[in-house]
Amino acid sequence: MDIGRLQLGTSRLRPARPRDHSRRGIRIGPHRAGSRLPARRGSATVTVMVQRVDAVEKVTGRALFADDIVAEGMLFAVPLHAAHPHARIRVLETAPAVEVPGVVAVLTAADLPAATRLGTIVRDQYILAGDRTRYQGDVLAVVAAETEAAARAGAAAIRVDYQPLPVLTDPQAALAPGAPLIHEERGTNLIASYRVRDGDPARAFATCTEILEREYRTSWIEHAYLEPESAIVTPEPDGSVTVRGSVQLPFNARRFIAQACGLPLSRVRVIQATLGGSFGGKDETINLICARLAVLALRTRRPVKSTYSREESMRESYKRHPFLVRSRLGVDANGKMQALDIEMTADGGPYCTSSPFVIWRPTVQCTGPYVVPGVRCDTRAVYTNNPLTGAMRGFGSPQFNFACESMVDEMAHAIGLDPVEFRRRNFFTQGCRTHTGQHLDNHTVSIRQVMETALERTGWAEKYARCGRGTPGPDGRAYGIGLACCYRGVSLGAEGADFCSAIVHVQPDASVLLQVGVSENGQGLKTAMTHIAATELGLPASQIRFLDTDTSHVPDGGPTVASRGTIVGGNAVLIAVARLKEMLEPLIAERIGALPEPRDATEATAAGPPGTTAGPPATAAGPPTTGTGGEPAGYRYTGGRIHHPVTGESIALNEVVAAAAEHRLYLQAFGSWAAPRVSWDEERGRGHAYFTYVYSCNVAEVTVEAATGKVRVTRLIGAHDPGRAINPEMVRGQIYGGLLMGMGLALGEHYPVAEGIGQVGNFDRYRICRAHQAPELEALIIENPDPAGPWGAKSIGEPANELAAPAITNAIFHATGVRIRSLPLQPEEILARWQR
Amino acid sequence: MDIGRLQLGTSRLRPARPRDHSRRGIRIGPHRAGSRLPARRGSATVTVMVQRVDAVEKVTGRALFADDIVAEGMLFAVPLHAAHPHARIRVLETAPAVEVPGVVAVLTAADLPAATRLGTIVRDQYILAGDRTRYQGDVLAVVAAETEAAARAGAAAIRVDYQPLPVLTDPQAALAPGAPLIHEERGTNLIASYRVRDGDPARAFATCTEILEREYRTSWIEHAYLEPESAIVTPEPDGSVTVRGSVQLPFNARRFIAQACGLPLSRVRVIQATLGGSFGGKDETINLICARLAVLALRTRRPVKSTYSREESMRESYKRHPFLVRSRLGVDANGKMQALDIEMTADGGPYCTSSPFVIWRPTVQCTGPYVVPGVRCDTRAVYTNNPLTGAMRGFGSPQFNFACESMVDEMAHAIGLDPVEFRRRNFFTQGCRTHTGQHLDNHTVSIRQVMETALERTGWAEKYARCGRGTPGPDGRAYGIGLACCYRGVSLGAEGADFCSAIVHVQPDASVLLQVGVSENGQGLKTAMTHIAATELGLPASQIRFLDTDTSHVPDGGPTVASRGTIVGGNAVLIAVARLKEMLEPLIAERIGALPEPRDATEATAAGPPGTTAGPPATAAGPPTTGTGGEPAGYRYTGGRIHHPVTGESIALNEVVAAAAEHRLYLQAFGSWAAPRVSWDEERGRGHAYFTYVYSCNVAEVTVEAATGKVRVTRLIGAHDPGRAINPEMVRGQIYGGLLMGMGLALGEHYPVAEGIGQVGNFDRYRICRAHQAPELEALIIENPDPAGPWGAKSIGEPANELAAPAITNAIFHATGVRIRSLPLQPEEILARWQR
Repeated sequence: MDIGRLQLGTSRLRPARPRDHSRRGIRIGPHRAGSRLPARRGSATVTVMVQRVDAVEKVTGRALFADDIVAEGMLFAVPLHAAHPHARIRVLETAPAVEVPGVVAVLTAADLPAATRLGTIVRDQYILAGDRTRYQGDVLAVVAAETEAAARAGAAAIRVDYQPLPVLTDPQAALAPGAPLIHEERGTNLIASYRVRDGDPARAFATCTEILEREYRTSWIEHAYLEPESAIVTPEPDGSVTVRGSVQLPFNARRFIAQACGLPLSRVRVIQATLGGSFGGKDETINLICARLAVLALRTRRPVKSTYSREESMRESYKRHPFLVRSRLGVDANGKMQALDIEMTADGGPYCTSSPFVIWRPTVQCTGPYVVPGVRCDTRAVYTNNPLTGAMRGFGSPQFNFACESMVDEMAHAIGLDPVEFRRRNFFTQGCRTHTGQHLDNHTVSIRQVMETALERTGWAEKYARCGRGTPGPDGRAYGIGLACCYRGVSLGAEGADFCSAIVHVQPDASVLLQVGVSENGQGLKTAMTHIAATELGLPASQIRFLDTDTSHVPDGGPTVASRGTIVGGNAVLIAVARLKEMLEPLIAERIGALPEPRDATEATAAGPPGTTAGPPATAAGPPTTGTGGEPAGYRYTGGRIHHPVTGESIALNEVVAAAAEHRLYLQAFGSWAAPRVSWDEERGRGHAYFTYVYSCNVAEVTVEAATGKVRVTRLIGAHDPGRAINPEMVRGQIYGGLLMGMGLALGEHYPVAEGIGQVGNFDRYRICRAHQAPELEALIIENPDPAGPWGAKSIGEPANELAAPAITNAIFHATGVRIRSLPLQPEEILARWQR
Repeated sequence: MDIGRLQLGTSRLRPARPRDHSRRGIRIGPHRAGSRLPARRGSATVTVMVQRVDAVEKVTGRALFADDIVAEGMLFAVPLHAAHPHARIRVLETAPAVEVPGVVAVLTAADLPAATRLGTIVRDQYILAGDRTRYQGDVLAVVAAETEAAARAGAAAIRVDYQPLPVLTDPQAALAPGAPLIHEERGTNLIASYRVRDGDPARAFATCTEILEREYRTSWIEHAYLEPESAIVTPEPDGSVTVRGSVQLPFNARRFIAQACGLPLSRVRVIQATLGGSFGGKDETINLICARLAVLALRTRRPVKSTYSREESMRESYKRHPFLVRSRLGVDANGKMQALDIEMTADGGPYCTSSPFVIWRPTVQCTGPYVVPGVRCDTRAVYTNNPLTGAMRGFGSPQFNFACESMVDEMAHAIGLDPVEFRRRNFFTQGCRTHTGQHLDNHTVSIRQVMETALERTGWAEKYARCGRGTPGPDGRAYGIGLACCYRGVSLGAEGADFCSAIVHVQPDASVLLQVGVSENGQGLKTAMTHIAATELGLPASQIRFLDTDTSHVPDGGPTVASRGTIVGGNAVLIAVARLKEMLEPLIAERIGALPEPRDATEATAAGPPGTTAGPPATAAGPPTTGTGGEPAGYRYTGGRIHHPVTGESIALNEVVAAAAEHRLYLQAFGSWAAPRVSWDEERGRGHAYFTYVYSCNVAEVTVEAATGKVRVTRLIGAHDPGRAINPEMVRGQIYGGLLMGMGLALGEHYPVAEGIGQVGNFDRYRICRAHQAPELEALIIENPDPAGPWGAKSIGEPANELAAPAITNAIFHATGVRIRSLPLQPEEILARWQR
């Protein structure tokens, strides 16, 4: 099979293909890299399948989640949440709480420095609400007591007198002149806005033969992590605090805590506990919770723990932003997109949180993976008194992609083109230019390859032709198939400082301690980092110990968000290992002979001078080869030994380690990787927004029950180009999970809100996908190693999650002719609009 | 006052002299360095008096000692000690213990791999005694139970049937042919021996006009730390263990635990708890205790704690080695020492522990600070079934110095010379050669300066002439004054790998995390390291946080013994800070201008290439100057700002830190310092044994009661040259404590042993000095900055402790004419031999 200029299924693939542990997942690669990619040394794929290093502790129940941690003499704390989403607090009387037996302390805003406000981007959050509430999750007081029951009784005893204020529930209304302001000092309810202008949209629209204008909406979505917020803060003898918590971003948590406590960062130590799910949901609210607990711990001089009930968690924690997307798309007579006019409005709730990031990403990705010459894009996030919204897997992409890929499907239908063919005509191609002016020339633009792989695997052409067309079959169900495609910027892009470090520390017995500035959020980071270090050092994974992220022992590697863990952490590990090997090289040379020739330029860069290594990756070419092909480039580390590339002579690693001790040389190597520089001109909306992109396609097959409108997804295929799948089994895991989460967005997940108050309190009524709803899932991995990635790897965590919804709604349209423009879909709406 | 070529009390001293917080301590310096010392830049002494960083937590009781640490679900473990010091174990029946309610596990040798034996130098210790006991402290079983009471009941229920074996109690007898062997596999009861031959002792003796031959003895001494052994081991979810314990040497503890558990070093994490005293006593026994607890923790999957009773501690822990010193000293007609023939035998108890180090040090120091042309020295340590002996403050020096300085005093008396004058004639001088062939030319040989300072302060000449002579005064007491001098090798010397690292990690708010590979044993290391880092960075000490030594987060800096903490840790900190400043320099230059001229060679060395920096110190010249004198050499860090040395322009450190983040530069600096190379030829006993030495003199004044022979020490002066006193208050603290501990050695401390069994079980009968016995104490600090030390500092911990006993016994001789040759002294012996 030949797809464009890329090869699938070459004979070079087979010998190295890992055993496929998943009957459903297939993996395709490696491909000959595009001409702009550097030549690869060797050709082996990753042959070491690494079991998750935390698998045993998780399946045996030994893993310690924050709530499992018990400290001698600890107190339990519970929050008192606002009863009104927008109100003046006239009276907050805590005396009755203090009188409850067992209550030790009640913390309110009055106990805190008035000026202190917290936030990741904008410091607009109050540690505790003082004179006013702004949403249902504002915390007025925290009650710490000897027992949870006493704390709850204490919280219940607090008397609050509210003076309700008008509740801003509509972002459009919130932006209207004269609307009450949620933060007076900001002078507006606009949190942030971005704009892109490319080409001449007006003139471009004039050339179009078909123009569609549509509105798409999504709703509040709960992260629905299994483990609610939990943390325990211990005051240390030296006046500092140690925090163990269910935190996704330990370094951000540290900042919040230090600010709240008035401590220097060095006196706040945050150690990540095993995380029971996060999906971006433990980026911020948990930090505020930790900050409150830390203040309590310092005041009471006792450890203080809090573990939220599900109800408390859902009330206070932020949700996925509801998006309203207004889109006008024009195509010419050849079915080529010519103009796009798009506006996105996100409901940010009462505080900024990550809203700017959440709207910036879809701004950059607003054309989808398509070339559109004339673009006007405006995005904005708005303060309201609705539930707080913030980071969630995808950062705006799932919402935007639903709109974009629905629109593309609608347009294909409108102009009578097959939706696949319409996409083929408009796809990004190698070296093309995006609407922000970025040329996609430093990585393989694989969107077409990814889509074609998915289509072939699905049997798309035959199914698309055979089925659908709105008529139920003999079983009373209509069948449909749909697809959606996207591209996605990797890591933080121009909106964030993108660098990370790792410490590789070889112990005297040649076992290794590994620390990385990013964190394990359940995604498998520990395993990926261990895998990379073990492979590069030629050691079994059991010899590597990944230490839980601890803010006092490794530098901040930036947030573990934006699917950046593997690429930034992995590169930092590779650089640290390269440094280590540099330290060892003279010792090895003494024992088994020097290397035959100077090492090549790529390696020299990777092993450069101390400090930050920016730009070229350490080992984009892949993990160490096992000897076939490729010119000798350095000592080979394998099987606990180090081999001379020419003579084959070898020496055990631990002998070299012993020699280092004789030379009084510490084998502690620090590696720091900075992402290639990116840029963003905020005024003009132009720039090299991300240093590389990933490409994805999902295909959904559905049946829709004629009698009820009920949709059943029968098959979901996620095809992704993650650069390289370092651990294919884990990549598949990400894809399966992402597909199901994306399905939830389409089918039923919805956190209903009325007058700023959430209408469901727990999972009894919040409907995440149940196991019985799971379709046949398939993960397709298409590998085009990226020069910026460790062993060529890019990202998979979020891409896996952001296309299922439009694939499903497109399939529903294929099955029924009903176009869903608001998520989640309502079977009754399908039923009402289904014209049979 | 002019003493030799060194100046006291110059006018340069006064402006910089720190306020003297001690009414009793005085401090002298800085002196113009000897010609071989590098020229100093600037002239300021250390003007920042740093309060102990752990003072508040200790005086408030917040400091967490190991026993304060409580883990959820922990077990308590108690040992079952041997009832016989040497016996076959015929039956060890643990079933009755298991039946005791609350007992969870009983660990015996049968549960362990038979081959595993532990030890710091020689692996001759059993984790648990299996078929044989070798001393009173062997542990046959450890019982872990829900409560301490249940564990004790369990231990008491164990039935043991012993077959007693002959008990070896005399080292001489143990070396006799045919003596039973304590470790058959070693083929001898000799643990270790050293020898030195210098010149031609036989011929040298022939030239002597006076030859004395004497025997001196010391006894077992208990460390008498306030806190007995305590540790808690937690099994981690990933199969590793975390140990918090009262351990002096966390890295050695880690080795013991890893070996016992069969774990790689990376899976054992030892975090030092606050140490309630150690004095070398928590170097080894505690490691075995931790190893047993770790095995139990892994088996029971529960945290296990053990805190020894005083009786258990005294039974199992090692003591100071009893020494038998046979010495023959010859002097010529001019009162110059010509020949020394000395044999030292140390009772090592049943296991090697640190015995080789304990006898090697006095081998190297066997002449005392005197030039002796002909030397024969033989030292040995011997296995017996007596209580275990091992490391204790001084490592053999207190025992040896008692013999040496008594002999010197005896000789002065014998030849009719004033003991001061006799010493003056024989002292080491600058550049002289020791009996091991080392020329003392790389530091200031200050023994004479130190002694003269002490004498002047005491008013020696007048007192020595006026008092004494054996006749009690009208109050029934005889007055005497005595002195003792010594030199002492700094750090490990040629017997150990002498290097250390530090990590200086600047946080985004310019607060600093500091880690060093040596540990806080109560001596003030945290404070010293914090002080050095704070001064070099121009920050208040409160901005620096020293992290408790944690084996998983800093490389092994070697044992914190041998008074090496400040010199090796301090140098590592200086190098790490220099690296950090190198990283910052371009950022500073951008903002306040580049430095006017290339930095000098000394600085270039300190800030050399990555890896180990050996040899020249980072900043021997002293802490940063404050602007007066000295040529500009770099940016000056002070008051949280960085100043240009010429223009005076300055910038806040935290602005530079922010700039580093913009440059994506991590301010984590690793510094590693290796001591200058030393050498030792074991066969010939020759070598450059230590890279530098310290010099000390103690003066004691006593009264002896005519009616009872009871000695009262009225005044003790410790005069020491520690190179530079980084924190004079802490140096004084070391001297005061050392003087009192040394006084105990002379006056009353004694762990009596009969047939291998200690005859006192606790402090009811083990007599450390009581407060009412404390004399007037005075600390004299004589500073001669050492080129190898941080800011010129060398050592003080042990030197402070090793001269009080001979100074006191020499004073007793002055008062009564009674020569004490066996410690501790017995008043009845004085009474019996006192000829009035």
